[in-house]
Amino acid sequence: MTVHSLSDTETDPAAALAALGLTLPEVVEDPKYLDWRASADGRIHLSGQLPYVDGKLPVTGAVGDTVDVDTARAMMVRATLNALAVGADAAGALERLRIVHMLAFVLSAPGFADQSRVADAGSELLVQVLGEHGRHARTAIGVAGLPRNSPVEVQLVCEVRR
Amino acid sequence: MTVHSLSDTETDPAAALAALGLTLPEVVEDPKYLDWRASADGRIHLSGQLPYVDGKLPVTGAVGDTVDVDTARAMMVRATLNALAVGADAAGALERLRIVHMLAFVLSAPGFADQSRVADAGSELLVQVLGEHGRHARTAIGVAGLPRNSPVEVQLVCEVRR
Amino acid sequence: MTVHSLSDTETDPAAALAALGLTLPEVVEDPKYLDWRASADGRIHLSGQLPYVDGKLPVTGAVGDTVDVDTARAMMVRATLNALAVGADAAGALERLRIVHMLAFVLSAPGFADQSRVADAGSELLVQVLGEHGRHARTAIGVAGLPRNSPVEVQLVCEVRR
Repeated sequence: MTVHSLSDTETDPAAALAALGLTLPEVVEDPKYLDWRASADGRIHLSGQLPYVDGKLPVTGAVGDTVDVDTARAMMVRATLNALAVGADAAGALERLRIVHMLAFVLSAPGFADQSRVADAGSELLVQVLGEHGRHARTAIGVAGLPRNSPVEVQLVCEVRR
Repeated sequence: MTVHSLSDTETDPAAALAALGLTLPEVVEDPKYLDWRASADGRIHLSGQLPYVDGKLPVTGAVGDTVDVDTARAMMVRATLNALAVGADAAGALERLRIVHMLAFVLSAPGFADQSRVADAGSELLVQVLGEHGRHARTAIGVAGLPRNSPVEVQLVCEVRR
Repeated sequence: MTVHSLSDTETDPAAALAALGLTLPEVVEDPKYLDWRASADGRIHLSGQLPYVDGKLPVTGAVGDTVDVDTARAMMVRATLNALAVGADAAGALERLRIVHMLAFVLSAPGFADQSRVADAGSELLVQVLGEHGRHARTAIGVAGLPRNSPVEVQLVCEVRR
């Protein structure tokens, strides 16, 4: 990809997304809560995102049981892409978004202990798309249940770039 | 309810609570940690709240097993009411409180996947009581255990209204 | 311990650590994410910390199953010590660190309900080392899985003292 107007350390998010063959999905509101909530100081808390594609979960079930790690990683990429769409909406544009923290939830069969490898797929996407602004602190845990039996969920704390 | 001094989009929290037949419980401190911790910038992190009533959990057990969804929703309302009491204490008054994010935990039996419907009961209360200031980003997950076998727990990030 | 330059309500973190026979471990970076991420306003989000000792988990497994409460408490102390090391790195020095919130995860066997007692061990360490600056809001939950089958994980939100 050719980038003209950015410094060496800057990533062009739109070009990076295109290079990955991805496009930001449309953000859908839930009637009961907000997709994101910002503070006066520019901090943005995003709602937990599931790996919806056109309003449906492509895969359901527990990782380590009916869902394998590679499938869970693909779902983590999708949930993170959905979070990027919400973050872009909150910050005004993807180019204004800075990631602070990712909390990654993996629906885990008993004994499954590779939550980090699943979460890595989401962490990689954030850095691929946003560069230095996509780097983040992270916590990955295995949970006993997720809405609609989704295999993964991603929650981000972000801020508007200064 | 009749509200005189507020704009059309403002909710009177005390009147809203009374209309629901609810009163804020007294806040009880745990010796090991704080109910809330504020930053200089007015951000407030609340400790996770259980659905205590007069120091006791009315219901214990996993949702989808011995606890049904309606009972879990009632417990979610109570945990959220307890969180509102802590938030009012932190902000100085319920009228000064703005909700940013809710993290809702549901003690989940294997296969239970309706965490969103349980969390909705807490989200609804926040908006009923605080109006626009009660709207929030949200994440709902199913967990394998909660203190004292509580069916739900609610953690809020709030701030003082500006 | 003798403290000369601090007021009565101040704790000397280095002396407190030494009195406990503890030293801050070296911080190790994961290639996929940051140990911590700070905002312009001085807020610091730490990545979830496991109870590593020299790169290895001393104990693995679920609490209430193969891991008892006392062992889990010792692992919680270690995970919290590791978090203090990261926090000191983020704030510039342990003396500049203020804790805001702890999210404590306990890998829980079915029916285990004493997550609070496990988390208490981490809460106690923060206050022993940082005094008033170590007090925090807290949420303790039981999870179905943790990376590498760790019995506990600790996530802190901190800030630089003002």
